Amino acid sequence: MIMTAPTADTTTAVILAAGLGTRMKSSLPKCLHAIAGRPMLAHLLAASGQVFDKMVVVTGPEMEAVARAAAPHPTVVQQDRLGTAHAALQAVPYFGEGDVAILYADNPLITPETLARLKAARAGNGLALLAMRPPAPGKYGRVITDDKGDVIRIVEWADANDAERAVGLCNAGVFCASGPDLARWLAAVRSDNAKGEYYLTDVVALAVAEGRRVVAVEADHTELRGVNSRSELAEAEATVQARLRLAAMDAGVTLTAPDTVFFAFDTVIEADVIVGPHVVFGPGVTIKTGTEILAFSHLEGCVVGEGSRIGPYARLRPGTVVGQHAHVGNFVELKATTLGDGAKANHLAYIGDASVGGGSNIGAGTITCNYDGNLKHRTTIGEGSFVGSNSTLVAPLTLGPGSFIAAGSTITKDVEADALAFGRAKQAERRGGGALIRSTWTKKKTGG
Amino acid sequence: MIMTAPTADTTTAVILAAGLGTRMKSSLPKCLHAIAGRPMLAHLLAASGQVFDKMVVVTGPEMEAVARAAAPHPTVVQQDRLGTAHAALQAVPYFGEGDVAILYADNPLITPETLARLKAARAGNGLALLAMRPPAPGKYGRVITDDKGDVIRIVEWADANDAERAVGLCNAGVFCASGPDLARWLAAVRSDNAKGEYYLTDVVALAVAEGRRVVAVEADHTELRGVNSRSELAEAEATVQARLRLAAMDAGVTLTAPDTVFFAFDTVIEADVIVGPHVVFGPGVTIKTGTEILAFSHLEGCVVGEGSRIGPYARLRPGTVVGQHAHVGNFVELKATTLGDGAKANHLAYIGDASVGGGSNIGAGTITCNYDGNLKHRTTIGEGSFVGSNSTLVAPLTLGPGSFIAAGSTITKDVEADALAFGRAKQAERRGGGALIRSTWTKKKTGG
Amino acid sequence: MIMTAPTADTTTAVILAAGLGTRMKSSLPKCLHAIAGRPMLAHLLAASGQVFDKMVVVTGPEMEAVARAAAPHPTVVQQDRLGTAHAALQAVPYFGEGDVAILYADNPLITPETLARLKAARAGNGLALLAMRPPAPGKYGRVITDDKGDVIRIVEWADANDAERAVGLCNAGVFCASGPDLARWLAAVRSDNAKGEYYLTDVVALAVAEGRRVVAVEADHTELRGVNSRSELAEAEATVQARLRLAAMDAGVTLTAPDTVFFAFDTVIEADVIVGPHVVFGPGVTIKTGTEILAFSHLEGCVVGEGSRIGPYARLRPGTVVGQHAHVGNFVELKATTLGDGAKANHLAYIGDASVGGGSNIGAGTITCNYDGNLKHRTTIGEGSFVGSNSTLVAPLTLGPGSFIAAGSTITKDVEADALAFGRAKQAERRGGGALIRSTWTKKKTGG
Repeated sequence: MIMTAPTADTTTAVILAAGLGTRMKSSLPKCLHAIAGRPMLAHLLAASGQVFDKMVVVTGPEMEAVARAAAPHPTVVQQDRLGTAHAALQAVPYFGEGDVAILYADNPLITPETLARLKAARAGNGLALLAMRPPAPGKYGRVITDDKGDVIRIVEWADANDAERAVGLCNAGVFCASGPDLARWLAAVRSDNAKGEYYLTDVVALAVAEGRRVVAVEADHTELRGVNSRSELAEAEATVQARLRLAAMDAGVTLTAPDTVFFAFDTVIEADVIVGPHVVFGPGVTIKTGTEILAFSHLEGCVVGEGSRIGPYARLRPGTVVGQHAHVGNFVELKATTLGDGAKANHLAYIGDASVGGGSNIGAGTITCNYDGNLKHRTTIGEGSFVGSNSTLVAPLTLGPGSFIAAGSTITKDVEADALAFGRAKQAERRGGGALIRSTWTKKKTGG
Repeated sequence: MIMTAPTADTTTAVILAAGLGTRMKSSLPKCLHAIAGRPMLAHLLAASGQVFDKMVVVTGPEMEAVARAAAPHPTVVQQDRLGTAHAALQAVPYFGEGDVAILYADNPLITPETLARLKAARAGNGLALLAMRPPAPGKYGRVITDDKGDVIRIVEWADANDAERAVGLCNAGVFCASGPDLARWLAAVRSDNAKGEYYLTDVVALAVAEGRRVVAVEADHTELRGVNSRSELAEAEATVQARLRLAAMDAGVTLTAPDTVFFAFDTVIEADVIVGPHVVFGPGVTIKTGTEILAFSHLEGCVVGEGSRIGPYARLRPGTVVGQHAHVGNFVELKATTLGDGAKANHLAYIGDASVGGGSNIGAGTITCNYDGNLKHRTTIGEGSFVGSNSTLVAPLTLGPGSFIAAGSTITKDVEADALAFGRAKQAERRGGGALIRSTWTKKKTGG
Repeated sequence: MIMTAPTADTTTAVILAAGLGTRMKSSLPKCLHAIAGRPMLAHLLAASGQVFDKMVVVTGPEMEAVARAAAPHPTVVQQDRLGTAHAALQAVPYFGEGDVAILYADNPLITPETLARLKAARAGNGLALLAMRPPAPGKYGRVITDDKGDVIRIVEWADANDAERAVGLCNAGVFCASGPDLARWLAAVRSDNAKGEYYLTDVVALAVAEGRRVVAVEADHTELRGVNSRSELAEAEATVQARLRLAAMDAGVTLTAPDTVFFAFDTVIEADVIVGPHVVFGPGVTIKTGTEILAFSHLEGCVVGEGSRIGPYARLRPGTVVGQHAHVGNFVELKATTLGDGAKANHLAYIGDASVGGGSNIGAGTITCNYDGNLKHRTTIGEGSFVGSNSTLVAPLTLGPGSFIAAGSTITKDVEADALAFGRAKQAERRGGGALIRSTWTKKKTGG
């Protein structure tokens, strides 16, 4: 845990991540459940990092996994769960003179744009808060404003009268104030309520009591939605995927069936890429222009060059780099493999820990035996090689450029450039042998 | 067909399944079309079986397939299709003294909860019926009630006046009465109407005429929806899938993309399982906690132990048992195979009729030759074995514990424990042979 | 480019396809982006061809690819993009005496039925146009009609008063008039407007000025929607897919999960076919009755006979013909291959450029080596053959009827009918060899 002295105007985002997430029915802390390929907490850290100078995460006891996920950002532990204000109070040692915003790890959809609006609204005012107008406001606290639109107070649903309940503007629970102000208000929050908890919302009354202006920044309610159950996690995932799909299409990517394509938070796809139906992108993928990703492909941690054709049913695993105008076909798995420009692996193959030279052709059924039961080894295939079908390439192995491997061979020793290598038995035949076998069959052929 | 004498209070569900389903355009009887992996009729039988003591299915002539699907429940044949009351009348010999409900095999979404409410509402009253409020009530018969909410009569849309048509409460056609009452009313139904059919709905008037109280039990209209076409079958499937997905999420299962995951009626998934996008479950699957099912997997008739990783593109077929912390990777098919704890089959393999010991590693491209064209044979692989890539294992075959199979081998004879077995040709090389082949090529390389 | 003299009553559809489609962010001309497996332009040509005698396509400069896609229909080039009337004017040399309709290549969803209604409405009147009532009419031009419903004028949104803007009937831009009338009006359109463009809409005023009756034909707005961005392309694709799915279900096809099945424009599926979730059809597929297409299958350019079972994870590529009661299983690719009646290829195989006789069994892991790096060659497998697992069949190759290939063999020479062929090394074993290897391992086994 690193603690550097904040400068006068350092801004800070405090992310409350101590929630147990009982409704998730999970042994994993709630904030570590993933959306679009990264934990909810990471979404918050990424969004905050675009607007605030530093981030602090408040966790609960025995949540070391959260601290590891938060690193290198510092974590403070809220030993007793006494309410949101109490949680935020733990982070006061990290406050600078600049703005401090309090966010929630289970509100992972908030955008940097909204955070920037919040921070901008704070400038010159005592306190800024995020508000929303959900279609069914239900039991959210209502934001009561005066004629000028300034916030007078937040009224909890239980305490609200009918007129107040009719107010559509709801409190999203996200606040921003200067570090010293917020620290002072947090310290002043009392727990003299039914549940005996310290509520963050009480800072509004404290700010108003000091005569400070409190402003509400309205944001889309879908963005401020909390994730408390697996269903809500799925809804949040759907919201993020919809954003990512739209962004891809706006950037000139054809998605034949957007609803069946799943992106990671960091997928990069250039214009004039076509993505077919039923494609899944894990983290760390970049696809260059003119490439086509056919149906049922699964890509993760890879770069695919211009004008290539991937799939259908291609699996590209981390560490894979596919060159330009290369082809990776059905039921082909590439792992930590470089496939050179114009190279082809079109059918049923596993190429792992390998480098395949440009223009090479990897036959159907080719397997690189990269694992000997103990260690992984590399296979290097030179440019313009031809690896015949059903070849078994036992690594460590180097096939020279222009080498030629006969179909069905098991290759255990390096092959010279331009050589022909083979490792297979001579064909033999027994006349009538098939009929003989068949004559012994006890039942009709029924398939396999 | 078994017929046991009903005891005094035996309750009975009669399922009308004689419908031809012309709009399905199918040679399969309508009630045998499947939803969530089992025929519509089976859904009705399962739901009824939770509420009623016994079930009777009314089929039409030449519908033996329905009788087989209904077994061991008895079937009666309605020789002439003279209407719903006539169909129900055929089942009277199976009525006991207890309640009898009349259901429809093409209304497969009805829940046990609704049936229990129907039966409970019958208690002490003459007749209970299910009613619904569809958003577009169209030509449904309307349920006309008195001030107390008791049913006075059902009015068919054709006979209804404007005030009656404005009633939102519609008849779902499902009735429940005591066996003797219902038998008497069914016998009294007349066919003096335009179509000359015996309508089940007429029992309402008969009950009212006897001064019996008739009560309506309202249920969600989506649950009472009929299936008369392939489109309606698809809608019913969607409704059931939505239920199953929600139940899984409520139980603590992460569904990254619920709309792309398809369950069977009996899928069991424990908490903290993660199911990726595009996964299909056939009947008979159980997944233990902590396991991850990656995209594009297809599971049927299998059990997967704790903390395992399945997929992407894994196919688990019936009779497969995967242990704890095992891995089944891409383009791997397991059939009637036990994969021990910590065992791995990560890439392109077919393992059928086999037992793989714990901690073993099955290399990419491994095939168990379980079928000799005549019979199936088993392969037994001992614990901690290493099967090299592209191995061909010709069953019946036993590989001893700790055995080691060299990549590219065809193994036809048993291998001792801790032995190394190989069955492959020696590698040979012709210097310049690749270049020589290439020199004969008549055209530029264009890929395969 | 063919130009035949039009006869007196030849009808013509002019398709304006000169649009650059800037918002598509594509190097491909907009009209060549595909929906349901064919370019938008091809959709227009197909729909028009059912109603009009001939089609003419107006392209822009340097759009030879469009001309190639339009062939054999003639193309005229609009050298300067001076507006829609100017574009249509280029096609006047192709007008006959009969009706001429002006359509847009980026309005690809228009149906032949709507075009027929448009043409029918033209008969006896001066001009017919397509109109629609979009839920959000926005800035569409409004169609102003008189008491009798005849069109008085089109008013552009910018020029419309409040009353006119309140009109829900919008101009879709599609017009139909006799060739001579339309030619005369197009020549009379002026560009004295803000943008200095020649607007096709001006023909309405010209027709009215001549005292000709102008009639509006209303069509569903979703059908008249334009495609100007990748998002709109995805929406159009979704609309077409919804049409195709509904048509399939109406024809008696079960789609377990319609939203996950993607058809091509020309997919033909007979009644009583079951299509599972996540299936993709490319162009040119015909499926006969009683066949089941299981999840994750991908079919293109193939015919599948009655009662066959395809998938899951089956890939059928162009030129494939599967007989009756045949099975193609998981991770199997067929390319330009005939699979005879009752033949089976159930697991992990690549069969390309092959003919497989009826009743044959292709073992798991079988690969046809159809490509030698230079040319493609054929494999012929006789009826009732048994190809053992992991076989490598090096084409050109003929296996006689009833032949039997031992598992793990590489076969390079033809095999006689009823013969047994093998080509594999003898199995050898080193006692304790596995243990010896393991004793050298430097780390714990961690999987592959």
